[in-house]
Amino acid sequence: NVGITDFQTSHRTVQLPGLVNIAAFVPGLVVRDSGDLQSVTKASIAAGFSMIRVMPLGEGEGNFITDAKSLKIAQHNGKRGGYCDYNFSVTATSVNADQISLLAGEVGSLFIPFNHMSGKNISKVAAVQAHFEAWPTHKPIITDARTTDLASILLLASLQSRRIHVTAVTTKDDIKLVALCKKKGLNVTCDVSVYALYLSQDNYPDCSFLPTARDQAALWHNLATIDVFSIGSLPYQLAQKLGKPADAAVGIADALPLLLTSVVEGKLTVDDIMTRLHDRPKEIFELHDQVGTSLEVEIGRSYTVPETGPWSPFAGKVLKGTVQRVTFQDQVACLDGIAVEGSPQGKDMSTHGAMPAIATIASPALKPLG
Amino acid sequence: NVGITDFQTSHRTVQLPGLVNIAAFVPGLVVRDSGDLQSVTKASIAAGFSMIRVMPLGEGEGNFITDAKSLKIAQHNGKRGGYCDYNFSVTATSVNADQISLLAGEVGSLFIPFNHMSGKNISKVAAVQAHFEAWPTHKPIITDARTTDLASILLLASLQSRRIHVTAVTTKDDIKLVALCKKKGLNVTCDVSVYALYLSQDNYPDCSFLPTARDQAALWHNLATIDVFSIGSLPYQLAQKLGKPADAAVGIADALPLLLTSVVEGKLTVDDIMTRLHDRPKEIFELHDQVGTSLEVEIGRSYTVPETGPWSPFAGKVLKGTVQRVTFQDQVACLDGIAVEGSPQGKDMSTHGAMPAIATIASPALKPLG
Ligand SMILES: [Zn+2]
Ligand SMILES: [Zn+2]
Ligand SMILES: [Zn+2]
Ligand SMILES: [Zn+2]
Ligand SMILES: [Zn+2]
Ligand SMILES: [Zn+2]
Ligand SMILES: [Zn+2]
Ligand SMILES: [Zn+2]
Repeated sequence: NVGITDFQTSHRTVQLPGLVNIAAFVPGLVVRDSGDLQSVTKASIAAGFSMIRVMPLGEGEGNFITDAKSLKIAQHNGKRGGYCDYNFSVTATSVNADQISLLAGEVGSLFIPFNHMSGKNISKVAAVQAHFEAWPTHKPIITDARTTDLASILLLASLQSRRIHVTAVTTKDDIKLVALCKKKGLNVTCDVSVYALYLSQDNYPDCSFLPTARDQAALWHNLATIDVFSIGSLPYQLAQKLGKPADAAVGIADALPLLLTSVVEGKLTVDDIMTRLHDRPKEIFELHDQVGTSLEVEIGRSYTVPETGPWSPFAGKVLKGTVQRVTFQDQVACLDGIAVEGSPQGKDMSTHGAMPAIATIASPALKPLG
Repeated sequence: NVGITDFQTSHRTVQLPGLVNIAAFVPGLVVRDSGDLQSVTKASIAAGFSMIRVMPLGEGEGNFITDAKSLKIAQHNGKRGGYCDYNFSVTATSVNADQISLLAGEVGSLFIPFNHMSGKNISKVAAVQAHFEAWPTHKPIITDARTTDLASILLLASLQSRRIHVTAVTTKDDIKLVALCKKKGLNVTCDVSVYALYLSQDNYPDCSFLPTARDQAALWHNLATIDVFSIGSLPYQLAQKLGKPADAAVGIADALPLLLTSVVEGKLTVDDIMTRLHDRPKEIFELHDQVGTSLEVEIGRSYTVPETGPWSPFAGKVLKGTVQRVTFQDQVACLDGIAVEGSPQGKDMSTHGAMPAIATIASPALKPLG
């Protein structure tokens, strides 16, 4: 009943390192004693994601990490036990630029929201500039800015020689702008939500947050410009918009089977996926390699997206790839999408990584003079 | 009754070259047989402006130069006779990027509107990019973009190594952004409307197009960043908003007396004015020097802004400077603000200037071989 059926068709097993979801949406992020982080990490490890970067904005008003107090609540929720490693970030607001540097050591990155569903968005160039000045230069900055806002923040990044990551690109114009900036030598990277590669406004005309069919074609056409595939808040937004139960885990299990199906169809290579769910995420966000962590995926094996569990727009559809086994900290954590009892716990990795490059270089042994 | 009264106070006469208004607003620009261009040139020469760059957007729907047809109407209106030299520009729209290059030889610059009172504005990064690609690299581009739009167009200019002029800056954030871009080596210049230096929302709380008092202070504080003083459409907009008769000539006569008053008050030097109303305009927009053209201004001489003629928010106020005499094409064109009968006519200079630098270098005489 977890949807795996072996039709004995030709398929191949591939070993992959633990994957990274660089934009994990946790609806009850700063809701006291919410179990959402636990749900999300549980669904993540079963789906092959052994590390998730938690977006610092949850669902609804006031539900974001903007200061020490809100970070503490999120950290406290993490103490219930996570199933994979995770880290937190901090949200830029129009008033917290002078406080964020205090949190820099406790989070993985700064998120500058322009279009988040929570409505907690920045609109002023000056506010963004203040954040650029306050945030340590070696730590990542992420934004979901679009169109002119995107151009605006890319200008500031360029002027201040900051690298910046653009998350959840959905339009032709935006991916082209990122491509142009890369070509001109700007230090910009981007991700596209997996759902945005497989669902469009052709499927859901009322969902303006999805790409149009033309936009989606442009995303595929500009695959070389996409550094990372993410899960993001798009699945949750879609469930909400369609009046479906918006489970914290929505969209997570679909990601890899969707991408592996594209491998079978010749639209992606396994390396395209590896690059965008492991290599580039680790580089861009300076994440530790996770020792003793790997997964076994079966490419070409039929997988019917289950009608039970978290809602999925693909429920009932037959995809062509599955996650068979996940090994985490040298122990089997999941088999066929089912968590193994007593499997190891993930840790809050927020204080690791994103160190200045210089700090990782060991001092050379000094030769005694004379 | 033209408002000049000599109180026999100490004042000094200074000779200046003919001034340039780089943003002259002609309300009936593309209205067939409108006399507005004539009115504006007449007021301009009397106020010391011997060259005006006409903004390619007039008042109201459809009143802009976007193609050969609308340019022809504006040119035809010029045939009624102008009192000073002038040139036209072309307006970028979201659909005319592939036609503007045909007009490039007949106009002085391309104007990319984001905030024009006519409502004919561009909002898409892709449309702006198309214009950058279509417009000859050696010809000026002007925009009235603000905030994130401004940042957006500056990014494109930076990526494509285009120089760009930002007109009618009114806010602290925008002047600071321009200052930052200049500091980082971007090829950007800007102007501020004279009215924006002397009127604020403290004077007219309902006029959001005026700077706030804080913005205005920032403009003065960043004087070094302001390349040019312009007249622009701000006086017209103000008259309209206040329900005053919106004469085409509104605001033109006030410009120099206001600035000269600041010289008397020690806030500006004559050189500050010269730089911003003659030197930099000529350089930025590659304008010819006007032979036999000069003016005599009296600094410190009291001038009561007249209650008659075009409406002025300064009517009745005593300013401390006047334009005494304007010489145009070696003939006296105006005395004490009054046009002299039979004075020479201005010409449409649209096809002059803004040539690639190479075209102005004469071929060296070839030495015969052997
Ligand atoms: Zn608790
Ligand atoms: Zn690795
Ligand atoms: Zn198998
Ligand atoms: Zn570490
Ligand atoms: Zn006619
Ligand atoms: Zn000169
Ligand atoms: Zn005198
Ligand atoms: Zn010429």
